[in-house]
Amino acid sequence: MDVRAILFDVFGTVVDWRGSLINELGAWGAGRGLTVDWPGLVDAWRGAYAPSMDRVRRGELPWTNLDALHRGSLAELAPRFGLVDQSEDDMEWVNLGWHRLQPWPDSVPGLVRLRKQYVLSPLSNANVALLVDMARRGGLPWDLVLCAEVFQHYKPDPETYLGACRLLALEPSEVMLCAAHNSDLAAAQQLGLRTGFITRPSEYGPHQVRDFGPEGQWDVVAADIEEFAGKMST
Amino acid sequence: MDVRAILFDVFGTVVDWRGSLINELGAWGAGRGLTVDWPGLVDAWRGAYAPSMDRVRRGELPWTNLDALHRGSLAELAPRFGLVDQSEDDMEWVNLGWHRLQPWPDSVPGLVRLRKQYVLSPLSNANVALLVDMARRGGLPWDLVLCAEVFQHYKPDPETYLGACRLLALEPSEVMLCAAHNSDLAAAQQLGLRTGFITRPSEYGPHQVRDFGPEGQWDVVAADIEEFAGKMST
Repeated sequence: MDVRAILFDVFGTVVDWRGSLINELGAWGAGRGLTVDWPGLVDAWRGAYAPSMDRVRRGELPWTNLDALHRGSLAELAPRFGLVDQSEDDMEWVNLGWHRLQPWPDSVPGLVRLRKQYVLSPLSNANVALLVDMARRGGLPWDLVLCAEVFQHYKPDPETYLGACRLLALEPSEVMLCAAHNSDLAAAQQLGLRTGFITRPSEYGPHQVRDFGPEGQWDVVAADIEEFAGKMST
Repeated sequence: MDVRAILFDVFGTVVDWRGSLINELGAWGAGRGLTVDWPGLVDAWRGAYAPSMDRVRRGELPWTNLDALHRGSLAELAPRFGLVDQSEDDMEWVNLGWHRLQPWPDSVPGLVRLRKQYVLSPLSNANVALLVDMARRGGLPWDLVLCAEVFQHYKPDPETYLGACRLLALEPSEVMLCAAHNSDLAAAQQLGLRTGFITRPSEYGPHQVRDFGPEGQWDVVAADIEEFAGKMST
């Protein structure tokens, strides 16, 4: 392998979206005496993620970034789980919870080690501002921020993976996608990128139904990003 | 002012392109016994920069990134200054000299201080790979890398300044452009961005003819990026 840059899927791979949102929003709601089913809301919110992006990918919606998709899903789902009578500012703060997600404990040490040798960027379906806020808060040492919003296409559209290679001025074979999701890696591999699988068996908490292990011929498989960094070090 | 992010012009403002190229290429040429007029070549190369981008801006060329524009100008100018009979790989290495430019001495300390309070990004006419290489080599602490290539427009096209605001999810009034060039600041101010002028009176060596001082109502004026960081600290 002649990998020069590593692109990371972010939600689930680098940050614990479920634990972060349930903890932070739960504490916020408790402070206000709200009775909201936070795990239910967070799981349903995440459930709306892929369908909302698919509407953009199929052309049913014009380009809409993830903050706006999240905001629309939240408005639709909130009442069902007891989140009602909140101000517009408060709903916006809840929506920006996705900007405040916490890295898994191995993410920052692993990325810091990898960055000595490789160019590091997210390649996420999130928008730029979300990823910048998250990186500053969580200490994620990206060299640059690439994501769906830059290419106005959501993964797994090829424009995302190939657009990242183009901007990095690298061949696909010089770029690795690292993700906890087999489908993301399959799309990248199909286009000639290298692949690294990270096992995140608790990403979906008790509701996880897939991605317990590698389901393709990935170049590297690791239990977490620190182990991955060890395997990628020369 | 309610500035949240600061965008930096790069060539001349953050890095010393002229001194870096003359020093590095001069040493490289001396090691090979070449008799090249390096200052003449570097000045002519930079002289071709704005006209080459203008051809793209006017639509005479399709989108072409700066590495490719630089490479075309180099091929045209090299023989006139004595750079002949070099391999394709060597000419490519010379062209990538723009990826290896050194920061002015105040740039890294000033940026490190600013980054504690502000989101920092380049907003350069360079391409992404150039800026990533330069940042890794020189230790420039960008949060993200925005540039002409992302927007497929060269400054001073409005798409660059407004595109950066859009991706940062900020109003123009929350974003400051910091540059050593009055014309760049004038374009940004016209669109509602804040402006910071850095004095770089030796950018063009003995050939500097403009930008010895502020020529507009800029929000902040400083002798270098460390002084600018002091003025921007709250």
